[in-house]
Amino acid sequence: MAVISQDIQTLDELFLHTLQDVYYAENQILKALPKMSAKASDPDLKAAFDSHLHETDGHVRRLEQVFGMLGLAPRGVDCPAMDGIIREADEIAAEISDKSVLDGALAASAQTVEHYEIARYGTLIAWARELGREDAAAVLQQNLDEEYAADRKLTQIAEARVNRRAR
Amino acid sequence: MAVISQDIQTLDELFLHTLQDVYYAENQILKALPKMSAKASDPDLKAAFDSHLHETDGHVRRLEQVFGMLGLAPRGVDCPAMDGIIREADEIAAEISDKSVLDGALAASAQTVEHYEIARYGTLIAWARELGREDAAAVLQQNLDEEYAADRKLTQIAEARVNRRAR
Repeated sequence: MAVISQDIQTLDELFLHTLQDVYYAENQILKALPKMSAKASDPDLKAAFDSHLHETDGHVRRLEQVFGMLGLAPRGVDCPAMDGIIREADEIAAEISDKSVLDGALAASAQTVEHYEIARYGTLIAWARELGREDAAAVLQQNLDEEYAADRKLTQIAEARVNRRAR
Repeated sequence: MAVISQDIQTLDELFLHTLQDVYYAENQILKALPKMSAKASDPDLKAAFDSHLHETDGHVRRLEQVFGMLGLAPRGVDCPAMDGIIREADEIAAEISDKSVLDGALAASAQTVEHYEIARYGTLIAWARELGREDAAAVLQQNLDEEYAADRKLTQIAEARVNRRAR
């Protein structure tokens, strides 16, 4: 992304830029999830990562559908936020050898990934509506719903740990 | 943060590391919010940033209270995620001159900040409970509640824009 180029002058352009940002982010997540699943020990957590990998592949396809609705080819732009979130996840995981503690850290990192996407999809849906593109909003809503569900699943896994400890 | 030092071996240590991560993040937000408020034109958005700056100051104090409960001095650790989120916010804002479009971008960036914190506080509260520290969980819950409220406020501001356009 060019800095201080003043390239974004309309909401259409801001929507497109953010769509490209999320397209890059989802593609980075596609690369990160198999590594996170490989590091996980808890079978529920591993299953959650594997299932979300499959969903993420669908998210990329839906974003490509939205690019198509705009008559544009799919393209990503640098997303320093997702790069930072994934770098933080990698760095924390590298510091931990205990399997149960590592599982906790991996689940928590995945929730920071989910929440970035929840924020971005919420914004993209609002802007699509503002631009009169209900068709794009409807497709993006499907991705948002799955991000929320993935986040809830990770919360359930974390709560199950708390309950196991309390017994 | 040292990489591959294997410094984190227990959930207590992971909790502390994440507390330090959020302490750093909240302090970065304290620096970023006045700049975001200065760039905003919409009076509601400006007011939301100013009010959240005041709240963020309170979040830092509450985190210091939690450090105190653990008998430790407050300390931050690098948080590549928040650094990346703030860098992305700055880069996007620098590309926009139209006031209304800039307001939209600023509100959206603030929501990515809120959602990082929502994920982190949710995790810290679950871990505090797992560690039997209901006292820390209760204090962290107050920060989480305010982050959720700040995010909802930004959504309301975005929706008001959509409704104005639709009229």
